[in-house]
Amino acid sequence: MTLPAKVRIVEVGPRDGLQNEKQVIPADTKVSLIRRLEAAGLKAIETTSFVSPKWVPQMGDNTEVLTRVLAEAAPGVDYPVLTPNMKGFEAALAAGAREVAVFGAASESFSQKNINCSIAESLERFRPVLEAAAAADVRVRGYVSCVAGCPYEGSVAPEAVAEVAGTLLDMGCYEVSLGDTIGSGNPASIQRMLEAVQRRVPVHQLAGHYHDTYGMAVANIHASLQAGVSVFDASVAGLGGCPYAAGASGNVATEDVVWLMNSLGVDTGIDLNALVDTAAWISSQLGREPASKVARALLAKRAKAACTG
Amino acid sequence: MTLPAKVRIVEVGPRDGLQNEKQVIPADTKVSLIRRLEAAGLKAIETTSFVSPKWVPQMGDNTEVLTRVLAEAAPGVDYPVLTPNMKGFEAALAAGAREVAVFGAASESFSQKNINCSIAESLERFRPVLEAAAAADVRVRGYVSCVAGCPYEGSVAPEAVAEVAGTLLDMGCYEVSLGDTIGSGNPASIQRMLEAVQRRVPVHQLAGHYHDTYGMAVANIHASLQAGVSVFDASVAGLGGCPYAAGASGNVATEDVVWLMNSLGVDTGIDLNALVDTAAWISSQLGREPASKVARALLAKRAKAACTG
Repeated sequence: MTLPAKVRIVEVGPRDGLQNEKQVIPADTKVSLIRRLEAAGLKAIETTSFVSPKWVPQMGDNTEVLTRVLAEAAPGVDYPVLTPNMKGFEAALAAGAREVAVFGAASESFSQKNINCSIAESLERFRPVLEAAAAADVRVRGYVSCVAGCPYEGSVAPEAVAEVAGTLLDMGCYEVSLGDTIGSGNPASIQRMLEAVQRRVPVHQLAGHYHDTYGMAVANIHASLQAGVSVFDASVAGLGGCPYAAGASGNVATEDVVWLMNSLGVDTGIDLNALVDTAAWISSQLGREPASKVARALLAKRAKAACTG
Repeated sequence: MTLPAKVRIVEVGPRDGLQNEKQVIPADTKVSLIRRLEAAGLKAIETTSFVSPKWVPQMGDNTEVLTRVLAEAAPGVDYPVLTPNMKGFEAALAAGAREVAVFGAASESFSQKNINCSIAESLERFRPVLEAAAAADVRVRGYVSCVAGCPYEGSVAPEAVAEVAGTLLDMGCYEVSLGDTIGSGNPASIQRMLEAVQRRVPVHQLAGHYHDTYGMAVANIHASLQAGVSVFDASVAGLGGCPYAAGASGNVATEDVVWLMNSLGVDTGIDLNALVDTAAWISSQLGREPASKVARALLAKRAKAACTG
């Protein structure tokens, strides 16, 4: 099987990662994290979320963070922000956002339990956001959650994923990121899901967003590469953990994805050493070790090299 | 691609795992660990190593452990032990061993640095062990190390792996376990290596022994399954860590392998919950968390279920 020659990695640590941390991280730390990620070569960095600080205090500094990041934006880097509704979109636009993200679930139960409405209703709520974004020439990325399983329903039909992904593209998203929210996918089920989605959506408009809860993310990314997917979401140092079980892993670590790609000869444009430095730095800010095996191994090797001269 | 319907998992935690722990574990703990692994459904448990206690104090209780384990051997379970030379083999035989293991490297530099002789010389040293084993009707398993890379040479030619694996089988081993000693393999390189080895050795006589140093082991196991391999070595709780870099991962965790197989519908005969219990137990004996993402996620879920009633 021929793999893509290069992939785009969308760094979600500053948003999807830090949003799921218990502690609220200072804006200075967030901005510094984003600057370090740019320096490591990341070209797409999800920066913050325009949600109510009542519900997500971790993102209460969204306007400050986005404004500061955009004031010294690196050339060629995208800084998408999550905007679940018009109020969020307007605030993001006022802060200068050029790319936003919206999300839908592939599971009815998940949609009901999480945002208290059906999948169809949730997509309708995004319609004004997509219209306003089009009018303002702002790109919109779509997320689909529960693409490989749902915490309430168990299995999720690949056709349901295809339908939500297709609708998001029809509504104007330029790309749809397929999220294995609970990490229950495996290489075979991910490939089956991707086959169904590709019957509805061109593969170049798909991204894989896989959680490493059960250590399957790297295998799932490899399976997706084989299916032609060339965009992957990842979180530096595996930031975020699992919102469903404290102590479990969440987003796949960016370092692990870059290692896989380097090792397969697939170009990412990312400097792995600088990325590992960034993982070590943000982990020390959070008072812990990076969740990434690659970061741990490379840091352990460096420590050993420093000891033995 | 059709995957094997069932796989055999060879548990190496009590030997390859505990041998690489800094602390010396009491024989009682080792025996109890093996009993728990049997109860979880493991049918092949590498029990100890008959090496000099001067070099490997962690295995200094080899005769006691093997004798006690065999005195209450579970039906249908194999208890291989590592025997690097005739002295070790004779001690193992005296303790009742019915299966032993020998090893060769696929890298000349690794062989020289680790056992101070060439690959060919190392294999010749095992010849009397294999002859004595045949005479005593003892099965011999072979290991090949550095099958996907060497800490000294970097890349290792798949043909070198094939040659050592073939020689071990020619000498009388019933199976050869292919070890990615430094965890540098990826799904593509592992498949290339397996293709070369399969030109020399039937796939049903091959096992995959993959280290998870860079988080690639599950993907490498999946790639091996696709290539027809149906035996995998693994270490409960990821015991052992990486002998080359403290803090890095070593053997792939048995829980992660069983999760992958369950999720792919491949039978292992292993009770994942009992295995996770065992991982939690031995990790608590060692004063740390299991290295397995699956164990962590399932233990976190249990803790949450216990909290919320």
